[in-house]
Amino acid sequence: MSVATALRNDWLEELKALLGERVSTAAAVREQHGHDESWHETAAPEAVCFARSTEEVAAIVKICAAHRVPVVPFGTGTSLEGHVNALHGGVTIDLGEMNAILRVSAEDLDCTVQPGVTRKQLNEHLRDTGLFFPIDPGANASLGGMAATRASGTNAVRYGTMRENVLALTVVLADGRVIRTAQRARKSSAGYDLTRLFVGSEGTLGVITEVTLRLYGIPESISAAVVSFPDIEGAVQAVITTIQAGVPVARIELLDEVQMEAIRNYSGLDYPAQPTLFLEFHGSEAGVAEQAETVGAICGDHGGGDFRWSSRTEDRSRLWEARHNAYYAALAMRPGSKGWPTDVCVPISALAECIVETKKDLAGSFLLAPLVGHVGDGNFHLSFLLDPDKPEELAEAHRLNDRLVMRALALGGTCTGEHGVGYGKMKFLQAEHGEALSVMRTLKQALDPDNIMNPGKIVAV
Amino acid sequence: MSVATALRNDWLEELKALLGERVSTAAAVREQHGHDESWHETAAPEAVCFARSTEEVAAIVKICAAHRVPVVPFGTGTSLEGHVNALHGGVTIDLGEMNAILRVSAEDLDCTVQPGVTRKQLNEHLRDTGLFFPIDPGANASLGGMAATRASGTNAVRYGTMRENVLALTVVLADGRVIRTAQRARKSSAGYDLTRLFVGSEGTLGVITEVTLRLYGIPESISAAVVSFPDIEGAVQAVITTIQAGVPVARIELLDEVQMEAIRNYSGLDYPAQPTLFLEFHGSEAGVAEQAETVGAICGDHGGGDFRWSSRTEDRSRLWEARHNAYYAALAMRPGSKGWPTDVCVPISALAECIVETKKDLAGSFLLAPLVGHVGDGNFHLSFLLDPDKPEELAEAHRLNDRLVMRALALGGTCTGEHGVGYGKMKFLQAEHGEALSVMRTLKQALDPDNIMNPGKIVAV
Repeated sequence: MSVATALRNDWLEELKALLGERVSTAAAVREQHGHDESWHETAAPEAVCFARSTEEVAAIVKICAAHRVPVVPFGTGTSLEGHVNALHGGVTIDLGEMNAILRVSAEDLDCTVQPGVTRKQLNEHLRDTGLFFPIDPGANASLGGMAATRASGTNAVRYGTMRENVLALTVVLADGRVIRTAQRARKSSAGYDLTRLFVGSEGTLGVITEVTLRLYGIPESISAAVVSFPDIEGAVQAVITTIQAGVPVARIELLDEVQMEAIRNYSGLDYPAQPTLFLEFHGSEAGVAEQAETVGAICGDHGGGDFRWSSRTEDRSRLWEARHNAYYAALAMRPGSKGWPTDVCVPISALAECIVETKKDLAGSFLLAPLVGHVGDGNFHLSFLLDPDKPEELAEAHRLNDRLVMRALALGGTCTGEHGVGYGKMKFLQAEHGEALSVMRTLKQALDPDNIMNPGKIVAV
Repeated sequence: MSVATALRNDWLEELKALLGERVSTAAAVREQHGHDESWHETAAPEAVCFARSTEEVAAIVKICAAHRVPVVPFGTGTSLEGHVNALHGGVTIDLGEMNAILRVSAEDLDCTVQPGVTRKQLNEHLRDTGLFFPIDPGANASLGGMAATRASGTNAVRYGTMRENVLALTVVLADGRVIRTAQRARKSSAGYDLTRLFVGSEGTLGVITEVTLRLYGIPESISAAVVSFPDIEGAVQAVITTIQAGVPVARIELLDEVQMEAIRNYSGLDYPAQPTLFLEFHGSEAGVAEQAETVGAICGDHGGGDFRWSSRTEDRSRLWEARHNAYYAALAMRPGSKGWPTDVCVPISALAECIVETKKDLAGSFLLAPLVGHVGDGNFHLSFLLDPDKPEELAEAHRLNDRLVMRALALGGTCTGEHGVGYGKMKFLQAEHGEALSVMRTLKQALDPDNIMNPGKIVAV
């Protein structure tokens, strides 16, 4: 046995002494924790720890720090850029058992949860309080993971992203120290914004072990609408006009004709296979009706067809279930395929150009790639449908995605609106941030000098 | 001449070679740049530079870095915790001449400005576009200064603070490098949130030389209301209920009976000298009427008197002018006095308790201290009216403020909701942040290893 292996075994023994059965080196467990929902290749950790408290996470990190062993936090594994893949081995900390809702304050419209609580679990828990947590990335992700990824989704146009909705975090640092990033007040000017520094840091600066979130009152009235357009420019222009008019739409989602065809087949919705907007309105009864009327008129001005509006809960549920299943509907277009979702976000004035140029690229490609978008924010996704065993398909997806990202950057946009960097997007950060990337590297080195926190993600050091 | 002085003169010569007449060592200019609007004692810099571009700021900082000379950024000097006081001498960079509005995009609802543009200047410029920038701290502060302080004010309950409304910054770092913190997309998950790191950093990590801001459409309808209460608890409970009910009030300001007495005398408003709420509603005509009706009923439930509602522009202007002059009205209660504004912010559920206990302290003190508050956020201010030549008055203000801050922290609040730390609030940060303060210190040391950027503010190193 080499000295290195002997040293590395020390940490495993120490972890076992700390956690007993809650450390696993079983191949199946390691494999399951070595990948997310994307096409990125599995990279399994050497051990998986199932932590139950902030103190345990701190103790695990201290052991890893002493032995310079990588630490990868794991929530539900629903990320899309290889965030949880253990590229340099080491220890994955599964936070799924830290799933307690610690506190809900109806008066303050906030709550504190452990990182393994999922967004659906929180909303189930809140149901009787009249409150809800709006951020909805589609997947039933953990709130710790959503904070770490700076996630958003369909409601962000109205309620913001995790950036706006995390009030404070408890974080275990790279040396095992535990900090609270902020008090619970709605606003503060008391020093550097550590909350926002850790939101979106993807486990590379510390492990999030508690999340304090903003909550909202369930609106008095909610209604939904669907409207089809003869072309995608008309749909996008209708969105731009709606946002400029200051209509506080809660959701405004674009699906292109390919995605609508997929949804017709998968979810049995009988809307035409044309570019389509799915909308949701929140407010008082009169307010919701007024919003729908305004947006209906705007859509009409841009060539929209019948504005199908409904305030019936079952109609809404059916619509949003179909929207949430868009990814699976896309995959079903090509059975056995894997999806590669892209994620650019541009200033809304550039959205029509960005989408139209991208669709031209797709028209000249052999890959099938339905489009969905949180277009009120300027954010849209293609899903490349790949046979992962065919290198030429992966190469073509890379080529198209590279062109898409560079187009978005040239238009003042970003390579990732909500999925995060993981290691899949690292190659674009120099082009996006320039010299600012070196500041990110400085921060990483200052807070994690031994590069043990989710190494190989966001910034190379 | 000592070696040190000789070395120090070198930097002055280099600055003069760079800027010519736009470097001043005149006593009056240095004195004017050595203090803000608060009671904190003047600390003049050794020289004042009037910069005209990002490149000039970078060149100034490079000269200062080479000679280890402190750099203090200066906007309008309207801060309140000694942010601009040159505690260790060095060079103040006056950014007032960098006052160009570089770009307005009505389609994207955003703009980019130089840091010396004031909020009133921006709103004048925007008037014909149908857009406005809502953040309103009272003073006609510069937008660079507001970003650096993480300012907010009366509209934050609806529109958020500078934290939510700065999309990107250009920053000159401590070594003179220039970075752009983000692209212009509404949301991004592309790495660490440098924008939010520099918002609120008060010049201690870099000098802000461009600010990209969110804009909003001017609402179709705006109305205002005033309502008096027999006691302050009733007024606060009415606010809490309004926020919980999800009414999107644009402004909801509390003034206590002392402040109302001051305003009656100063602005000639004939409202009774009782705890009073000033409100503003933004929306469609029907929406604004609906909001006013809801809030009127809530106020009635909590003992509020006549709900005086008006959509006439002149009534609104008179009301908000009186609110903005509250500080001067307070000072006029004791001619020749200086004001010391406090700034705690607590979770709204703790607001009534925090205010009531604080009023008890005041009842037992010889100092006069009117109260105003952005109570929808849980943020309120006392203005201690001091004779600065009387040490016993300063001591009493310290005693009362210490008690107030410790009370707010115990209730889950912060020592500063919007004024920032400067050097006036540094002594409270350990109690507020605990171990997290050491992370702030690590960040400061990583980005400004020689401690030349506004030294002696936020964190001691």
